[in-house]
Amino acid sequence: MVATTELDLPRLRRAFHRHPEPAWREFHTTARLVEEVRSIGVDELAVGPEAYDPDDRMAAPDADSDEVRRWMDRAIERGADEELVEQMAGGNTGLVAVLDRQDGADGEDGPHVGLRVDIDGLFIEESADEEHLPVREGFRSETEETMHACGHDAHMTWGLAVLDAVKRSDFAGRFTVFFQPAEEVSGGGHPMAESEYAAGLDSLFAVHVGLDHPTGEVVAGVEEILAMCHVDATFRGTSAHAGKAPNEGDNAMQALGTAIQNAYGIPRHADGMTRVNIGVAEAGTASNIIAEKATIHGEARGETTELMEYMKSKLSRTLDSAAEMHGCEADVEIVSESPRVDSDPELAGVVADAAAGVDGVETVTERAAFGASEDATFLMDRAHREGGRATFLIVGTDHPTSHHTATFDVDERSLPIGVEVLTKAVLAAGEGEPGAE
Amino acid sequence: MVATTELDLPRLRRAFHRHPEPAWREFHTTARLVEEVRSIGVDELAVGPEAYDPDDRMAAPDADSDEVRRWMDRAIERGADEELVEQMAGGNTGLVAVLDRQDGADGEDGPHVGLRVDIDGLFIEESADEEHLPVREGFRSETEETMHACGHDAHMTWGLAVLDAVKRSDFAGRFTVFFQPAEEVSGGGHPMAESEYAAGLDSLFAVHVGLDHPTGEVVAGVEEILAMCHVDATFRGTSAHAGKAPNEGDNAMQALGTAIQNAYGIPRHADGMTRVNIGVAEAGTASNIIAEKATIHGEARGETTELMEYMKSKLSRTLDSAAEMHGCEADVEIVSESPRVDSDPELAGVVADAAAGVDGVETVTERAAFGASEDATFLMDRAHREGGRATFLIVGTDHPTSHHTATFDVDERSLPIGVEVLTKAVLAAGEGEPGAE
Amino acid sequence: MVATTELDLPRLRRAFHRHPEPAWREFHTTARLVEEVRSIGVDELAVGPEAYDPDDRMAAPDADSDEVRRWMDRAIERGADEELVEQMAGGNTGLVAVLDRQDGADGEDGPHVGLRVDIDGLFIEESADEEHLPVREGFRSETEETMHACGHDAHMTWGLAVLDAVKRSDFAGRFTVFFQPAEEVSGGGHPMAESEYAAGLDSLFAVHVGLDHPTGEVVAGVEEILAMCHVDATFRGTSAHAGKAPNEGDNAMQALGTAIQNAYGIPRHADGMTRVNIGVAEAGTASNIIAEKATIHGEARGETTELMEYMKSKLSRTLDSAAEMHGCEADVEIVSESPRVDSDPELAGVVADAAAGVDGVETVTERAAFGASEDATFLMDRAHREGGRATFLIVGTDHPTSHHTATFDVDERSLPIGVEVLTKAVLAAGEGEPGAE
Amino acid sequence: MVATTELDLPRLRRAFHRHPEPAWREFHTTARLVEEVRSIGVDELAVGPEAYDPDDRMAAPDADSDEVRRWMDRAIERGADEELVEQMAGGNTGLVAVLDRQDGADGEDGPHVGLRVDIDGLFIEESADEEHLPVREGFRSETEETMHACGHDAHMTWGLAVLDAVKRSDFAGRFTVFFQPAEEVSGGGHPMAESEYAAGLDSLFAVHVGLDHPTGEVVAGVEEILAMCHVDATFRGTSAHAGKAPNEGDNAMQALGTAIQNAYGIPRHADGMTRVNIGVAEAGTASNIIAEKATIHGEARGETTELMEYMKSKLSRTLDSAAEMHGCEADVEIVSESPRVDSDPELAGVVADAAAGVDGVETVTERAAFGASEDATFLMDRAHREGGRATFLIVGTDHPTSHHTATFDVDERSLPIGVEVLTKAVLAAGEGEPGAE
Repeated sequence: MVATTELDLPRLRRAFHRHPEPAWREFHTTARLVEEVRSIGVDELAVGPEAYDPDDRMAAPDADSDEVRRWMDRAIERGADEELVEQMAGGNTGLVAVLDRQDGADGEDGPHVGLRVDIDGLFIEESADEEHLPVREGFRSETEETMHACGHDAHMTWGLAVLDAVKRSDFAGRFTVFFQPAEEVSGGGHPMAESEYAAGLDSLFAVHVGLDHPTGEVVAGVEEILAMCHVDATFRGTSAHAGKAPNEGDNAMQALGTAIQNAYGIPRHADGMTRVNIGVAEAGTASNIIAEKATIHGEARGETTELMEYMKSKLSRTLDSAAEMHGCEADVEIVSESPRVDSDPELAGVVADAAAGVDGVETVTERAAFGASEDATFLMDRAHREGGRATFLIVGTDHPTSHHTATFDVDERSLPIGVEVLTKAVLAAGEGEPGAE
Repeated sequence: MVATTELDLPRLRRAFHRHPEPAWREFHTTARLVEEVRSIGVDELAVGPEAYDPDDRMAAPDADSDEVRRWMDRAIERGADEELVEQMAGGNTGLVAVLDRQDGADGEDGPHVGLRVDIDGLFIEESADEEHLPVREGFRSETEETMHACGHDAHMTWGLAVLDAVKRSDFAGRFTVFFQPAEEVSGGGHPMAESEYAAGLDSLFAVHVGLDHPTGEVVAGVEEILAMCHVDATFRGTSAHAGKAPNEGDNAMQALGTAIQNAYGIPRHADGMTRVNIGVAEAGTASNIIAEKATIHGEARGETTELMEYMKSKLSRTLDSAAEMHGCEADVEIVSESPRVDSDPELAGVVADAAAGVDGVETVTERAAFGASEDATFLMDRAHREGGRATFLIVGTDHPTSHHTATFDVDERSLPIGVEVLTKAVLAAGEGEPGAE
Repeated sequence: MVATTELDLPRLRRAFHRHPEPAWREFHTTARLVEEVRSIGVDELAVGPEAYDPDDRMAAPDADSDEVRRWMDRAIERGADEELVEQMAGGNTGLVAVLDRQDGADGEDGPHVGLRVDIDGLFIEESADEEHLPVREGFRSETEETMHACGHDAHMTWGLAVLDAVKRSDFAGRFTVFFQPAEEVSGGGHPMAESEYAAGLDSLFAVHVGLDHPTGEVVAGVEEILAMCHVDATFRGTSAHAGKAPNEGDNAMQALGTAIQNAYGIPRHADGMTRVNIGVAEAGTASNIIAEKATIHGEARGETTELMEYMKSKLSRTLDSAAEMHGCEADVEIVSESPRVDSDPELAGVVADAAAGVDGVETVTERAAFGASEDATFLMDRAHREGGRATFLIVGTDHPTSHHTATFDVDERSLPIGVEVLTKAVLAAGEGEPGAE
Repeated sequence: MVATTELDLPRLRRAFHRHPEPAWREFHTTARLVEEVRSIGVDELAVGPEAYDPDDRMAAPDADSDEVRRWMDRAIERGADEELVEQMAGGNTGLVAVLDRQDGADGEDGPHVGLRVDIDGLFIEESADEEHLPVREGFRSETEETMHACGHDAHMTWGLAVLDAVKRSDFAGRFTVFFQPAEEVSGGGHPMAESEYAAGLDSLFAVHVGLDHPTGEVVAGVEEILAMCHVDATFRGTSAHAGKAPNEGDNAMQALGTAIQNAYGIPRHADGMTRVNIGVAEAGTASNIIAEKATIHGEARGETTELMEYMKSKLSRTLDSAAEMHGCEADVEIVSESPRVDSDPELAGVVADAAAGVDGVETVTERAAFGASEDATFLMDRAHREGGRATFLIVGTDHPTSHHTATFDVDERSLPIGVEVLTKAVLAAGEGEPGAE
């Protein structure tokens, strides 16, 4: 039952690192993944609209947007297969790869095991500091103001390598790898979870690197994945000349200021952890014009789905009142949301068993609080609802600075650890019900 | 002493209207003006760095900016002379045209008369409504998100037509037309005023269209041109993951919100009118990241230079304290400023006399409060300091909506009125002291 | 026609200064004025409800309030006539004194001339600094946290002394002195103006001391008395334990913070000067309780009545939206307002003529901008509406610090100047129509 | 070892309920407690300054304050022993009662067992609604705007009744009851904990009623008593006339608004629960004066002492920056703080054992999160530091509305339950050294 991959893990990860693409723009990334999956060889391969219903996407871009087109062109310029890129037009990125290896000997199907990894980068300009290892070793992001600052480059590497290793094993059953786009905007988890590929999952593994757990630690299953929603808002007022007629304006800039100040002031909740953030704001066109328009991208989270709903409702009221105070119209849109889910303890136990004895693993933590959000919860939730089990595991890595910062990096010693832990867990899950061993 | 122009005023104005360019990016505009000036024929023509010292510019762009380069390329694409555009590289736009017509008969130089018009557009997307005349008549802005929404297209038309008319007259002296760039950012007045071309002005006319004065009204000289400053600020904090570690951030978004709220709250002043505006704000990179950076473009004005200084100093303190409150660094820069100047009553009298009897002029208003700012005050101030006279006149126009709005338009009946009033005033000023007639 | 008073002006003024009382609580003050008026001897004397209809009062206190009762008791303790104080129960303070001296010789009534002075103090704790003259000379306020910091002590002195002087003159006509309460809250002008005593005023003088004009200057008539309104607001939310259940509160404190921030940010107006102030705020009961209630006392002003209406409407919206943002109810009440009025130039001319030649007068300023508000405008407005003339004059005084500060004081050299200017003006106005002389 | 009290519990509790007094003003309350303690009979009784060093008090009032004097007078009026009240002058309220019952048989001292109850009320006006039981049954608060809205009336009843019951038992050792003042402002815990009476506690019980646990539930020991600090701040600016010279003010009202808005926006912390509240604010003196002064009473809490320190430091920065932004001085004072402490599991076990079998107890919860703060932690911390054990237990009660609301009430069925649980626990703890069992 031993299984290995022959892929060159650091080479793969660095190639992904050099070409980060933001949510729903992973054209080059998807094309590259397709290439690697084909080279491994699978039974089913579904790309973009084949893998899910585009209408199920959350936080999706305007299909006709010039900006999306530019990402497509850039991907093609960088060598992505043009036909493949066109298939993803409008931002239908990502893929699903399936090994269908029912042994059929006993007339019974083997189990359906899934692995979910995410593939998008972030709008962060990667550090150009010589101290930053990707600079020193020459694989710094080549995409302006975009960076794999959350380790999804490592996740994709694991997705491919585990696929390769399972291919080479005696696994009997159905093994599906979800290369999910748009995790950072909570956009891709929902369509993946709604697709036929997510049907009948007996065991699902979702994985993340790092998150303040050092190289050598494996967390078998996280709890308290915060529920979250993404909120976009636009304030529309009336422009006017700031010198001649300030009174004729309905100032979207003031609505923005009021909204920011009050959003962070939404009361903390007795029932548990909540979060709120206005992450992006843009307003106005010139210093001497009363701003006619302001836009906001924000989010709210809660330790439970109820707490997220509390924050969402207060945030909506805050945005509406801020607009009203300054004579503006507010257009508030909940662009995506993801529920709270906890890992299944039994399947986490399978991971813990798998991690024990893996070379380089020093600590196996059964359970830990997550404290953030992840739209893997959509897939996990579906597995649970259909009677399966799901766990979200963390493979530790020494990272020099926090996730989502310009000098984030992954300790590549964690790459083979992740592959081995995941492969062993997938194979163990494939053998049948835990305890049947 | 009668003088006329043979230029087709509406055609000229509409051509400018179709190709607006923002401050310090008037490459196509300048090239087109040069073409027209050459066709009129002048004694001296100075373009960009020939017309002023680029170091004297205020609110100037980064010379190596890609964005400036794109405006240069666009100008060339639209047919601007490439060599001329390259001469303006880095954003050294605008020109000065001079008729040097000393008659020499009596061995004495004639007077130096100046006319200042401004040439830049605004970052406003022009209305596409069929009701909007430029749409109906096919001369809507062809530049995305940029518009002549303040009438500088009419100003340029006047500059050229008056030059043409004076050329055709018996004017004896030196007549300088300043086609000043970057008025909307108070950027071009200062370098023009510091240049040799502004030396020894006996009479200077600056002109504006409209400003809520209807077609048929001429205001001979405005008072209370507000002093103004433009302020840019950047808040630099610390990014962090909004879900995992909100406490690790120093939130530039919160600094921005605090700054906006408090900037508009700077106390009104007993000594007169003040203004403040945060016209543009941008902050953050993603909804789930605590914003590391926020930028602001704002302005402050005062009825007097002292009042402007009061507002500037309060605004600076506000921005600094907002940053400090949220653990951010504030980088506050005063990018430009212009003083308060009033029109010279005597020269305004010359304008009033000139306007009387002009066809289409129904009302001549001797003096009116301006209530806004204008960096023409730099040139006016220089003229006053060197013993000359300056007036800022308004040629009324029926405009359907306010200046700086998407449906602003000029009533073209005001075009010939402006030409005749200005030409008569220039010729009268050229004859010597008013009253000497 | 010369007229003088025999009253001891500094003694009178200092007596008033020692016993300041706030708006609608001038029980001791009124009683003292009645005593002095009786000692002068008048034809009609109307106190409190005799002088006006209590229902016409603005910003009036709750009639049954314990706090008003305490001011009544204090007045009685300090020696005020008890019966008189009871007559003013509920806060119906102030008085009107009338000399009715029609000469009847020609069967025609002489003119009706009025003088309006105000009588209330301010909630300011007077300085105890030895440098402060009232301390040094022993007439510092004996009322805790209350002070004549606006010079109404001088105004009352003038009211009495001019009454005395006119009594001693050959004035033929009706002379009414309005000792108006509650000017500081714009509360007493309206009922005085609505009363029968204000009917048929041919000439009305209202007077103020100081206002940054030095001893020796007289301003014959002010312009631009700002229109004003007083606004009270209460935010009602829901209290909750700040540690156990912050989410269960609807935080009136947050509504207050939002209201303050946004009130001062109401846009300046192109048409002229505006003002806004939140002068008093109180919220909450304990540091560990989410505040259930917050109250605000504020005001808005405008250079014109329209501008005041603009500010009032924006302020109301601001308060409503601030409440809504935090789930509170807002109860916003306009407790009083006063219109914009300008002095009549002709009657100001009478004052200017009167001031010329008065001992101690060095400068006579025909007209000056006022820049603040005054509910004398109600009386002025009535006079104008009924065909009479009104002027608001200023008798300068050197005051060491600003009005409404703890170290404000009046230069007593201005006391006799005021008496003589006013008496001469009243007598001149009494002679008949200007120009009829 | 059975012990009972003969006190009439509802009668006692209702008597306390009728006379609530706020922190450091419990003059009548203390006098009444002394009376009851004397009637029970104890070995040591220390009142006010005898019980602790007044200098150790936190959040103590100004000793010479008129307001404190008024509470003293009111207590005397209501029948409190005058000499006793004077002994507490300046606000040194509270008492300690001791039974010293060493049996001495074996020459060894018995254990020192403590019980801490708190005695202060809250500034809340008790509901006058007929539905509210204290109204219906005639024991509504007779103190204006003050109420036992947190159940301290029940706590005192328990303190007395357990003292009585232990007195009647065969308890051998030292039993100290701390009737602690000023819990609501975290003011009395510290001086009690520093006193000699708190020395050598082997077991300490602190108790609270209700807190959302119903009648019949006992929580044996709470965890997560939030660390807390109380913060007072004063902003001092410059007053000015809001109409004449708004620019001359340094507006403490604006500083207040900015402070409120930003205080609630202090970022949530990844490490756990935090709280912040501005509970009381007062600013300004008149609607037409720019406020010279504003005061704030606020608090911050954290799940750990470190988190409280984080909040405290951010809150201080917020207040300082808000002042600076508006040219004011900020005087920020941390008036009291209390640490995070958790109950000792072993001693909680003693409580759980005691609760089992008590009549009316339906549920015994071993441990529960507290989620609020309590300055009982000072005493608990001292016991722990000196090698003893402490637990904070909750005796459930059905309360119709939340603690700290106007309609809070205690279900009196919980009174005997509390007495029996506490008495049994005290006696069990008194049987010997932990571990000696």
